[in-house]
Amino acid sequence: MTASAKLRFTISMSLDGFVAGPIESVGNPLGIGGERLHDWVVPLAAWRAPHGYEGGEVNESTPVFEESLANVGATLMGRGMFGGAPGPWNANHPWNGWWGDNPPFHHPVFVLTHHTREPLALEGGTTFTFVTNGIEEALELAMTAAGGKDVALLGGASAAQQYLVADLVDEMEISLVPTLLGGGKRLFDSVGANLHGLDLVRTIATPKVTHFKFARHGRD
Amino acid sequence: MTASAKLRFTISMSLDGFVAGPIESVGNPLGIGGERLHDWVVPLAAWRAPHGYEGGEVNESTPVFEESLANVGATLMGRGMFGGAPGPWNANHPWNGWWGDNPPFHHPVFVLTHHTREPLALEGGTTFTFVTNGIEEALELAMTAAGGKDVALLGGASAAQQYLVADLVDEMEISLVPTLLGGGKRLFDSVGANLHGLDLVRTIATPKVTHFKFARHGRD
Repeated sequence: MTASAKLRFTISMSLDGFVAGPIESVGNPLGIGGERLHDWVVPLAAWRAPHGYEGGEVNESTPVFEESLANVGATLMGRGMFGGAPGPWNANHPWNGWWGDNPPFHHPVFVLTHHTREPLALEGGTTFTFVTNGIEEALELAMTAAGGKDVALLGGASAAQQYLVADLVDEMEISLVPTLLGGGKRLFDSVGANLHGLDLVRTIATPKVTHFKFARHGRD
Repeated sequence: MTASAKLRFTISMSLDGFVAGPIESVGNPLGIGGERLHDWVVPLAAWRAPHGYEGGEVNESTPVFEESLANVGATLMGRGMFGGAPGPWNANHPWNGWWGDNPPFHHPVFVLTHHTREPLALEGGTTFTFVTNGIEEALELAMTAAGGKDVALLGGASAAQQYLVADLVDEMEISLVPTLLGGGKRLFDSVGANLHGLDLVRTIATPKVTHFKFARHGRD
């Protein structure tokens, strides 16, 4: 990886610390109530355009969302966020992610999994590569693929916890939504009693969400 | 209780949702690292003056702390916050709270406990009354004692959870500190998947802490 490329983790979290609600399923991938975590981003024009919709809002969250997309050359995510049934991939009924034939990434995406699978090339430049040798190899592959740009880590909780505990996260943007989910996946669970070298560097408060940006000591 | 008097809950919480760190003890009443939750308030001139210290800072948190003291006629707290060993009160070695002979309350304080004890009158107008018949009786006694002013609920987690679940909290000020404690008492645990009639009405962001004020629908 180049000296200046960063691993940037962005996620939305409820006031009670959940990044997905209880009882996740194919029909309800964010768990019960979990879609409330995205109520701030889905109305944004900046979110709607890359997802193929016209119109939308411009507000104080717009620059935060735009920043999360800027200068990103590759994406990392856990198997849960990619989706599909747990266990080995089913070659007869392949799961190709939540995002349809033309996912909004348009760059290489690396999925942490325990089960090998051939890379999956979809339209628009998105290729999913399945990595079974752990978080460090996945990060190396993603940094190489990003070609000097940053790598986005999207979650879920388990993948994020592993990168945080390994002190590999360079920036973290927590979008805190003032709601309670009452259960589900907690982001800050078993990650210890410190922020793993990260400091709060910016807070943007809006009625729907508060964005907390953390950055590593000594990095810009 | 009068129609306009409110139950106002104020507390400091870590980014991982704890209002006290792990392993609370007489020597470390907020648990390991828990004192970090108060790093924003202790330097304030508004905090130092009622605790008998001169000087201090005036910053964006000052009006939030001043508001928490204004128009309060009585205080409610759980046994854990009052302190002392669990179990029956020991008449030979009485525990009189953390605050010395002249506590900073200067009004009636009601302590939720399972063990009866005579009221404890200290200097400066602070009297601790020990209530064994549950949260509703404690609130009634506090409202009566407050004489039309509001009642402050200071926690800890267990007392706050009981009042939240019973939909008895009229205002809630969460001061979120951007640190991780990694363990301890979680505030939002077993309180369900909604804010019990409360809405976010104000956010004040500072580098050390973000203050989230919630108020009940239809109340000012």
